[in-house]
Amino acid sequence: MSKYVYFFNEGSARMRDLLGGKGANLCEMTRLGMPVPQGFVITTEVCVHYTKEGAYPPTLDEQVNAALANVEKEMGLKFGDEHEPLLLSCRSGARRSMPGMMETVLNVGLCSKTIPGLIEKTRNERFVYDAYRRLIMMYSDVVMEKAEGIETKEGEGIRDKLESLMAGMKKKKHYTQDTELTAEDLKELCTQFKKKVREVMGRDFPDDPMEQLWGSVGAVFKSWNGKRAVSYRRIEHIPDDWGTATNVQSMVFGNMGETSATGVAFTRNPATGENKFYGEWLPNAQGEDVVAGIRTPNPLNEETKNPQNKHLPSLQSKWPALYRELGSIRTTLEKHFRDMQDIEFTIQEGKLYMLQCRNGKRTGTAAVNMAMDMMEEGLIDEKTAVKRVEPGHIEEVLHPIVDPEKEKEVRPFLKGLPAGPGGACGKIVFTSADAVKSASRGEKVILVREETNPEDVEGMRAAEGILTARGGMTSHAALVARGWGKCCIVGAGDAEINLGAKRLSAEGTKLKEGDLITLNGTRGLVYKGALALVNPSANRQFWHRFEDFMKLADKYRTIGVRTNADTQHDAKVARDFGAEGIGLFRTEHMFYGKGSDEPLFLLRKMILSNTPEERQAAVDELYPIVKRDIKATLEAMDGLPVTIRLLDPPLHEFVPQGKENQAQLAKALGIKPSDIKKRGEALRESNPMMGHRGVRLGITYPEITEMQVRAILEASAELIKAGKRMKPEIMVPVTCDVGELDATRVIVDRVHVEVRKTTGVDVPFLYGTMIEIPRACLLADKMAKSAQFFSFGTNDLTQMTFGFSRDDIGTFLPDYLKQGLLPADPFQTIDQAGVGQLIQMSVDRGRAARPDLKIGICGEQGGDPASVEFCFKAGLNYVSCSPFRVPVARLAAAQANLKHKEAENRGV
Amino acid sequence: MSKYVYFFNEGSARMRDLLGGKGANLCEMTRLGMPVPQGFVITTEVCVHYTKEGAYPPTLDEQVNAALANVEKEMGLKFGDEHEPLLLSCRSGARRSMPGMMETVLNVGLCSKTIPGLIEKTRNERFVYDAYRRLIMMYSDVVMEKAEGIETKEGEGIRDKLESLMAGMKKKKHYTQDTELTAEDLKELCTQFKKKVREVMGRDFPDDPMEQLWGSVGAVFKSWNGKRAVSYRRIEHIPDDWGTATNVQSMVFGNMGETSATGVAFTRNPATGENKFYGEWLPNAQGEDVVAGIRTPNPLNEETKNPQNKHLPSLQSKWPALYRELGSIRTTLEKHFRDMQDIEFTIQEGKLYMLQCRNGKRTGTAAVNMAMDMMEEGLIDEKTAVKRVEPGHIEEVLHPIVDPEKEKEVRPFLKGLPAGPGGACGKIVFTSADAVKSASRGEKVILVREETNPEDVEGMRAAEGILTARGGMTSHAALVARGWGKCCIVGAGDAEINLGAKRLSAEGTKLKEGDLITLNGTRGLVYKGALALVNPSANRQFWHRFEDFMKLADKYRTIGVRTNADTQHDAKVARDFGAEGIGLFRTEHMFYGKGSDEPLFLLRKMILSNTPEERQAAVDELYPIVKRDIKATLEAMDGLPVTIRLLDPPLHEFVPQGKENQAQLAKALGIKPSDIKKRGEALRESNPMMGHRGVRLGITYPEITEMQVRAILEASAELIKAGKRMKPEIMVPVTCDVGELDATRVIVDRVHVEVRKTTGVDVPFLYGTMIEIPRACLLADKMAKSAQFFSFGTNDLTQMTFGFSRDDIGTFLPDYLKQGLLPADPFQTIDQAGVGQLIQMSVDRGRAARPDLKIGICGEQGGDPASVEFCFKAGLNYVSCSPFRVPVARLAAAQANLKHKEAENRGV
Repeated sequence: MSKYVYFFNEGSARMRDLLGGKGANLCEMTRLGMPVPQGFVITTEVCVHYTKEGAYPPTLDEQVNAALANVEKEMGLKFGDEHEPLLLSCRSGARRSMPGMMETVLNVGLCSKTIPGLIEKTRNERFVYDAYRRLIMMYSDVVMEKAEGIETKEGEGIRDKLESLMAGMKKKKHYTQDTELTAEDLKELCTQFKKKVREVMGRDFPDDPMEQLWGSVGAVFKSWNGKRAVSYRRIEHIPDDWGTATNVQSMVFGNMGETSATGVAFTRNPATGENKFYGEWLPNAQGEDVVAGIRTPNPLNEETKNPQNKHLPSLQSKWPALYRELGSIRTTLEKHFRDMQDIEFTIQEGKLYMLQCRNGKRTGTAAVNMAMDMMEEGLIDEKTAVKRVEPGHIEEVLHPIVDPEKEKEVRPFLKGLPAGPGGACGKIVFTSADAVKSASRGEKVILVREETNPEDVEGMRAAEGILTARGGMTSHAALVARGWGKCCIVGAGDAEINLGAKRLSAEGTKLKEGDLITLNGTRGLVYKGALALVNPSANRQFWHRFEDFMKLADKYRTIGVRTNADTQHDAKVARDFGAEGIGLFRTEHMFYGKGSDEPLFLLRKMILSNTPEERQAAVDELYPIVKRDIKATLEAMDGLPVTIRLLDPPLHEFVPQGKENQAQLAKALGIKPSDIKKRGEALRESNPMMGHRGVRLGITYPEITEMQVRAILEASAELIKAGKRMKPEIMVPVTCDVGELDATRVIVDRVHVEVRKTTGVDVPFLYGTMIEIPRACLLADKMAKSAQFFSFGTNDLTQMTFGFSRDDIGTFLPDYLKQGLLPADPFQTIDQAGVGQLIQMSVDRGRAARPDLKIGICGEQGGDPASVEFCFKAGLNYVSCSPFRVPVARLAAAQANLKHKEAENRGV
Repeated sequence: MSKYVYFFNEGSARMRDLLGGKGANLCEMTRLGMPVPQGFVITTEVCVHYTKEGAYPPTLDEQVNAALANVEKEMGLKFGDEHEPLLLSCRSGARRSMPGMMETVLNVGLCSKTIPGLIEKTRNERFVYDAYRRLIMMYSDVVMEKAEGIETKEGEGIRDKLESLMAGMKKKKHYTQDTELTAEDLKELCTQFKKKVREVMGRDFPDDPMEQLWGSVGAVFKSWNGKRAVSYRRIEHIPDDWGTATNVQSMVFGNMGETSATGVAFTRNPATGENKFYGEWLPNAQGEDVVAGIRTPNPLNEETKNPQNKHLPSLQSKWPALYRELGSIRTTLEKHFRDMQDIEFTIQEGKLYMLQCRNGKRTGTAAVNMAMDMMEEGLIDEKTAVKRVEPGHIEEVLHPIVDPEKEKEVRPFLKGLPAGPGGACGKIVFTSADAVKSASRGEKVILVREETNPEDVEGMRAAEGILTARGGMTSHAALVARGWGKCCIVGAGDAEINLGAKRLSAEGTKLKEGDLITLNGTRGLVYKGALALVNPSANRQFWHRFEDFMKLADKYRTIGVRTNADTQHDAKVARDFGAEGIGLFRTEHMFYGKGSDEPLFLLRKMILSNTPEERQAAVDELYPIVKRDIKATLEAMDGLPVTIRLLDPPLHEFVPQGKENQAQLAKALGIKPSDIKKRGEALRESNPMMGHRGVRLGITYPEITEMQVRAILEASAELIKAGKRMKPEIMVPVTCDVGELDATRVIVDRVHVEVRKTTGVDVPFLYGTMIEIPRACLLADKMAKSAQFFSFGTNDLTQMTFGFSRDDIGTFLPDYLKQGLLPADPFQTIDQAGVGQLIQMSVDRGRAARPDLKIGICGEQGGDPASVEFCFKAGLNYVSCSPFRVPVARLAAAQANLKHKEAENRGV
């Protein structure tokens, strides 16, 4: 018989795949002797089975009953008992944390039979009816409505209807706070609630504890496929077939009066990494109250108070003994897990209970600082430190920050908690939908909300930054933003938000939708207007720490990291970020966005030439410019390899638009302006991506190839004469057959001899090709006979392998991702299943033909961590990515190597 | 020591790879005891070596000397001897015949030392100096100019200069014919020639026989890479690395006076296949005179005289004994080679010499008739008969012919020899270059020439048909046209062609460039204007023969042949041609070229719908039309499988252009005409080939898929109810992942259940996919888990594999083919090296996952013989092609199987 249910002392932290993260850690804390309310975990396998079959495995029922009996025994209570009733919570818990994305039902077991006994036992009728009204609200919403797939319009769900009954009651009684509701009020409300449930849902709120329990368990499992959960999984690349576990645990209550409380804490500061116990708590509250960010919570201790909460009492000052007990648990947990923990606790009538612990989410800054600190403390070794920081953290650390010089000159109009670091600037939007809409138009927006809830996930993703008026550092908005490395400020209590009028005001500053604001998420400051954002290395102290960390990572890295750079400036930036060469220099990019129009004009002249003579003349004019730009970049990379791709311009894009431009060009070519238009028409292609481009241009117009090769070799010769070390790598793009390489090589060799004659320098060089067409992969053995190196152009290779035009995927790829037809956007992360096969094939066949074949990747996925790991496994020599992604790739490469070594040691 | 030289009695017909076709057959005829002037073959290996290294293998010299000594001994003559001089010819000869594409030098060995002796021996001074002036002309042109790579403008080569000296001499002497030149004239001319050669070429015409010999041998080898030869090889797919042999043979002379002659013959009629000895001859002429088509030649015998040559004397009537000797050789050769032979002979002073024999080129009609005849005669067995007809012959046989009914009503204005059968109609052009230019614009042209020469090859290829004023059935034009199955009329002596004015006139009819004419190549008749062309089955007698032949082929065929058909009419035609089902029914093709605009209008409405409701309404309107068309085609194929591809329209092409159309559509959709334009703009894609198409449409708009599936299943259900046998195959296009198939299958299954409910018929069906995206090939094992069949869409697969947009290859693919970078246009014949790997991979992986996976091909290459053979070898179940190519594919499939069986029997 398969085991589907684990009592807390039967599991451990190693079983997170089966028990989910929350369940596994509850088991682990139980094993460590910590005060955990007893309970059991129904495994993720049950979820998978339930999702697939629509029914539970046959023996689940009896296993749950056995586990429940065990909980009753441990707790000295009985589920559904008239006198000593046990109440339960049902919570989700997946292998990886998906905060707030799935459902929870609390206070399960309250019913007409158990209510009197609980009142007698707690002597607190108000508490019991408050718990009961919460159960009815949650259960009717989560189990009776959502889990049944009943969709309602916003504000018309059963929960909204019950909320409005409660609001009506408060209004009638002239209350402003929920806490003013008396036991009698709540009892009356529960009656009204049950009547409304029957009226709306067409069936009674169940009065049988076991029915409540199974309803809740099913709703948790079903919430795995709820819209929010699915959407979050897409973004986080969590597989759909993992499933969630359901944790059934004895209820403890932080809202049982003034000696009760609930709180959330981190064993170190999750925003900065500082080694201080950091957290928030609320007296007389249930756990959801802290996380939901409805009330601004109290600080955990004195030393971590901040301007926003310094007037509130700390747990340390209020209950020193409990704080010490919690502090000792903090120490035990950090030593045990050797990582920063995010914990939830509840104090019920003066007794501390641990409800959850997990590795805490952190900012990039915190991740780097904690990894280095813990290594220095001897808590973790070097390899663990390198693995501890996620590549995404590095990207976040490299995010721009508000220019400190500019920031000195202005005053913030609003302050909040620094929940997600870095700077962000954008137009104000007030709803998640508006954020998504504006971002899809390419606008940068700041999402401003009273508080955020899980429905806002997509808008938060789309926004540059997030600002909320309420909530603490552990609120939903803070947690999610930190996970994504997004700039976020929460709990900016002075903010007055008028959602209807779409206005934000504070301290006399009045703003409306579309106005620009700037967030300093590192300090929690909000500015009117747009402040300049700068490179994060401006923070020198942290930057040194970061550089030390990167050096540590490099110690464990075995493959090279180069950069894609088209200008001397980019080359220098990348070199500072640790690039070990240029993997892709795109000749045609020197024609984009120049102040002067000259090079672009000459390129147009060349493209629109009709005869070899015209073309040669244009090519001759272009030559000095191409040589100058190549030389500048080569010089910046002195001593490092530089791969120069031959021209691959999308011809028709360079045809001048507008009468004036056409007239000017016509004059230069000595033809009529109308002929320019005609020639431009002739260049128009049905599918330019698969048209006359790359090496195909060089095959039909060899003079273009010749000019570039001469520019590369002469520039190199001149630099060599000046004492530089040069070995340019000449790369032929868009090849599909070795014949193209052989034909181009003839030109290269001829020019090489000529340059040797004219300059006296025998320029060493490598000759190779982009591998970006499927056929080149299939014939890689033949390609490698001519090419001395390969560089995968994974953008084009992905286009051809999928038949997806990158410019046109907007109409269908979002649906593919939404429907789960593809696990990820293949233009962001290499499609290992398909494109990966072609890459592996090219590596294997290419090296079989030429064992010392140098292989790299220069597509945009070169900086994507999963893709870097794939490239490492596939046996590439280096990856190449945009300058700002170089450190990300360096870390990803080091981690790939460590992972591989570990697998080897395990004998995998 | 490698053997580089074969004396004629050392070789055999089996050695054609090494000795070339001509050399191998000269050896064979020598072995058969026929009167062959002795000589030797320098092998193709020497050509390959010479081409690569620029020098001969070291031992060649001594092997040639030894063979030459042998020839001298056999012939009783001596090369360079003062008294008994041996003269030699040097001719090319490749593995496969390349008529007129390479060089020849005759009369080698004539020099100041040998001329007097030869005059003494022949007592014919005129003959000797005529031979000498021919040698100087050929040698200076071929060896001293062309082989040295000296390019000259047209009309300015050394040959032209010598021709003009000769013309000057004739003018001075008031001669009109070359034959009027006296011995003295010719002697003087030779002196002038040599002076001109020294003047133009800067060196003397060589007077040393051995220098002449080696110069000629080298020129023959070099001509393998001459422009004409390379261009011909491209068209005929002959590998560049085969090389040519050089045949060095004792000269015999057909121009030694009135008892000498030269001729060309076929052992059966090459145009019709009729079993009659058929040929042409010229008295007192060298062999080149017949082939060059300068004089209209005499008929070989009485029974094959035709209206054009009935007034000329036949060889049979002039020299009955020689004719009988030739007739006996004809019989021996046919029995020996068991195939129709094309022979060249020379009569020197009453003695017959055989100069060449080879399998004769023939028309498709002749090929079919001869294969059936020879099988019935017991000369060949069934398998040989099947192999004897080339798939290209079938295509030719299926070529349209001039409508016999229409032809009755008109009179030809011109008659000529029926050199290439079938009908052709097009605009007159007068140069090869004009033919190529017009054809590239999509115009149909007839190339009209005084005579054709090898330089015209590309123009002949581009033209629909060829008409020449001079030359016989064995002339260059006739030979090449027949080889390609192209309609051709030669020797239309009444034609007056004015090349300068671009005019053609005959019998009072005056035509100019661009005027339409029609050729009946089967009967040699030329008509003014355009006559209708019809299906060749109009010739009932031949058609029955053809059908018998196809039945014979089917006996040896193991894979299926289906057709691509989108209408009931196409389906019927294809079924008549032997199609065993439909491999590709393109739903969207029902919207092309309809008389009524209705379906297109509804499609546009659907495409331009903005909301699911609008779209559903349009889809509902389309439904009855789609169902009607599908039903008609299904009905036509009763009992045979029909694969229906779901809609794959290139959306933006269906956006209405023009104000009126837009207004009409806007009205139907209830929106503004300007919105139609806007919606159209929104549909425009950068690369539509890789855009929102195929299954991607169904993923985003499932209602479109649902409508089609319902149409297919309901149509089938209705036909089944009416007693038809239906098992439609539903094919999903443009898939790249099994997820797409699974998602679509959900719709199919749902609709299937619904149709079963509404009609009461459980329609049997197969569910499968096009394989046309590289990723689908790479993941074929996964695709096959959902798909019950695969059908390769090799058009798209080729596009994606190469990154070649088929609509845009015009700017570069011609250069690729010209430069030999690719062996063939991959859209015409499957690129086995690249695309072939993906196909084989799909077959292997697909069958591994689903052993009974049905696999076919429905790209346009499905009817290409080489591709059919590849598909057979790759293990496909069937090929599918356009209706008119079905018989071609049937034969190609049979031959592939026979070839495979033979290879098996040989233990390969």
